[in-house]
Amino acid sequence: MDRVLSYIDQNQDRFLQELKDFLRIPSISNNAENKKDVLRCAHFVADQLRQIGMQQTQLFPTSGHPIVYGEWLGNPGQPTVLCYGHYDVQPVDPVDLWVSGPFDPTIRNGEIYARGSVDDKGQVLMNFKGVEAHLKAEGKLPVNIKFLIEGEEEVGSVNLDNFIADHKELLSADVVLISDTPMFDRGVPSICYGLRGLVYCQIDLKGSSSDLHSGSFGGTVINPNFALAQIILALKNNEGRIQIPGFYDDVQEMTPDEKQELSRLPFNEAKYQKDLAAPALFGEKDYSTLERIWVRPTLEVNGLCGGFTGEGAKTVIPAKAMAKISMRLVPNQDPDKIADLFERYLKQITPAAVELSLTRMHGGKPWVAPINHPAIQAASRAFEKAFGKRPVFVREGGSIPVVATFAELLGLPSVLMGIGLPDENAHAPNEKLDLYNFQTGISGSAHFFNEMSRG
Amino acid sequence: MDRVLSYIDQNQDRFLQELKDFLRIPSISNNAENKKDVLRCAHFVADQLRQIGMQQTQLFPTSGHPIVYGEWLGNPGQPTVLCYGHYDVQPVDPVDLWVSGPFDPTIRNGEIYARGSVDDKGQVLMNFKGVEAHLKAEGKLPVNIKFLIEGEEEVGSVNLDNFIADHKELLSADVVLISDTPMFDRGVPSICYGLRGLVYCQIDLKGSSSDLHSGSFGGTVINPNFALAQIILALKNNEGRIQIPGFYDDVQEMTPDEKQELSRLPFNEAKYQKDLAAPALFGEKDYSTLERIWVRPTLEVNGLCGGFTGEGAKTVIPAKAMAKISMRLVPNQDPDKIADLFERYLKQITPAAVELSLTRMHGGKPWVAPINHPAIQAASRAFEKAFGKRPVFVREGGSIPVVATFAELLGLPSVLMGIGLPDENAHAPNEKLDLYNFQTGISGSAHFFNEMSRG
Repeated sequence: MDRVLSYIDQNQDRFLQELKDFLRIPSISNNAENKKDVLRCAHFVADQLRQIGMQQTQLFPTSGHPIVYGEWLGNPGQPTVLCYGHYDVQPVDPVDLWVSGPFDPTIRNGEIYARGSVDDKGQVLMNFKGVEAHLKAEGKLPVNIKFLIEGEEEVGSVNLDNFIADHKELLSADVVLISDTPMFDRGVPSICYGLRGLVYCQIDLKGSSSDLHSGSFGGTVINPNFALAQIILALKNNEGRIQIPGFYDDVQEMTPDEKQELSRLPFNEAKYQKDLAAPALFGEKDYSTLERIWVRPTLEVNGLCGGFTGEGAKTVIPAKAMAKISMRLVPNQDPDKIADLFERYLKQITPAAVELSLTRMHGGKPWVAPINHPAIQAASRAFEKAFGKRPVFVREGGSIPVVATFAELLGLPSVLMGIGLPDENAHAPNEKLDLYNFQTGISGSAHFFNEMSRG
Repeated sequence: MDRVLSYIDQNQDRFLQELKDFLRIPSISNNAENKKDVLRCAHFVADQLRQIGMQQTQLFPTSGHPIVYGEWLGNPGQPTVLCYGHYDVQPVDPVDLWVSGPFDPTIRNGEIYARGSVDDKGQVLMNFKGVEAHLKAEGKLPVNIKFLIEGEEEVGSVNLDNFIADHKELLSADVVLISDTPMFDRGVPSICYGLRGLVYCQIDLKGSSSDLHSGSFGGTVINPNFALAQIILALKNNEGRIQIPGFYDDVQEMTPDEKQELSRLPFNEAKYQKDLAAPALFGEKDYSTLERIWVRPTLEVNGLCGGFTGEGAKTVIPAKAMAKISMRLVPNQDPDKIADLFERYLKQITPAAVELSLTRMHGGKPWVAPINHPAIQAASRAFEKAFGKRPVFVREGGSIPVVATFAELLGLPSVLMGIGLPDENAHAPNEKLDLYNFQTGISGSAHFFNEMSRG
């Protein structure tokens, strides 16, 4: 590993330049107007794969954005690692809150600011460079590798499941490596062994056929904005408990061991609150903050809108109101079942004076893995060697639905080695990535391939 | 009056062309980018005043949009009518719901569609033409007249009160004529003797310092969208009753006579609902629809917004949420007192985990007049002659705060002779004006000046 690690040391500046090039591409998968940028980004990924020594590199078109694939199978008899990541990014609004442009990567205090820096371009490139170091320094990898980098993770990986189902042979492997999860804290390398699932829906309410003058009509018809507030409050009570009948039926409580492990983690509620600059913490009664994120489901109103929202005053009763509502699920909640329960309850609580329309947007299953799996233990040793300290085992409140897909369709376990930090503003303005973690993570990635090698 | 009325008949086509020219100017007073258009519209009004024979016509600049003034005082000994109107219009969003462009006046089925057609350009021009007919056909008016046409009615007439206070001599008169209220129904000419007042506020809520990933943080902090829903539902109960302590204290109940008068009006709830295409009517318990509009106060959420509202899905907990909330007031509620009560209650009901900021935007006092006032009776006779049937006496749910201002600052009674229809989409997409009412209203206006003349 010495030559591999010194190759990494000697090429850090170039790796950073390549990260900047990657981050300059506005690959927002959710915006139709960025479709060409997303395609350009796919070609950037394919070029990277060729440069680091992958073979069979190609773009697989989908009905949305392409999937990029590349492989190196030069070490028969050794395990094959299927390395998954995504090159698409979240939208950037509200853009006026960014200190530097979202696609103008800028380094301040050892952190690089740009949309996609932590989620997920920085972590994708980290694994590219971990592979490159082996191939350039040693001429070979200690394992076989396949890269599967998609461009639709931020829009629910809508074409990925079909692609995986149609390419089971191409993607056959022994383990999946994903780097898209945060470290527990700065200086605390972490292996993630559990994820929440997701159900995401849009509610549209319609009252009158057009907006009405609130003077001439105010007091005689329902205001869809009020109906929306009624619905939202009926979904969750003031103590953070979701009111959908049956919602908690399949929720798996933590084992006493897990509960003890979790209580040992160096979690500081006051610092957590301060980092968020939140006036107070708030969540489901009788659970700690970590439990609320990792092992309890939640329901959030991700967006709502109705009537006049511009500058100034307009005296209108809107014809329509809209909310985007998502639920984070934990084992063993099933997204389809939860979406059904949600829809049934929604119909009950919607006031009769408005028309409801519900759109199910996407979903993903929750996931939890055994910590003593050999690949998870290999990841733990790799991070210990790179960061100089033993990693902690954590869960994550976010969703990586593809983890469940790999288990179901390919029968593969996943190893989640992420190097993001919790305050790096994924999905928010001023997204950033700590460059120490990026650079150390490249060594961690290289170590992982080594630790996965048999004898 | 014969020559006056036949002048009106002979010039209808030109009047319509001039209305179209007036409507083509996008004089949206609420949009900074339309400032030049609003000024252009003020000059159009001044040109009209000169053409119909007004003297001393001029633009009075304000810190916002100019006030246009013109007078004809050639009949000493006769009363002076101060005719008030506004040349500014509401914003046009959502613009995609307009069948023809909001500033491309288009006639369909005897109605002219354009922003400002009924509110208030059509009705302003109606009075201009009523005056023009006298001056061109007879060489004089049966009364003296002063026109005061402002450009900030849709933004709360922010500079008008000061202007009136500073120009009491210039504006001295015997009665104010305002045409900015609807007829009770098609074919039912109406005189309005009561208006609701207004308080308009904006609420801004702040949670965390930036938008958060709803996976990583969902369940541990308050979501400002939830807090907003909590506030909205605490303001009004499910039976439409406003929950602000003291809110109803000064509400004047109808007299038995008024109640009887109101119950005689040809009001059809089923048709009202059908016209609005509302799934159901909804309002304060124990009051009829007409009572809810005319003599009961209300509270509406004119707009709300928070988080991701674009196309697709973004899993975010927003840092901020906003609502625009207005209350319609009835005699004898005072806007300042109600705004104070609202603010005090708002502070009580806002969850501790969000920061609240409240902006008072504007307000106006409610108003009610005695039906037997000589000027109101003159208006009644004028409409009877023009429309061929006796008008009804109605109130209006909207606000014309200037009516209270004229009473307070100049000691003047107001006569409200409007010819809009309730379904003409004031403040909404596809605003329109019935051309029969526009043309008949010009005769009604000419008759009114005649009826106001002494002996």
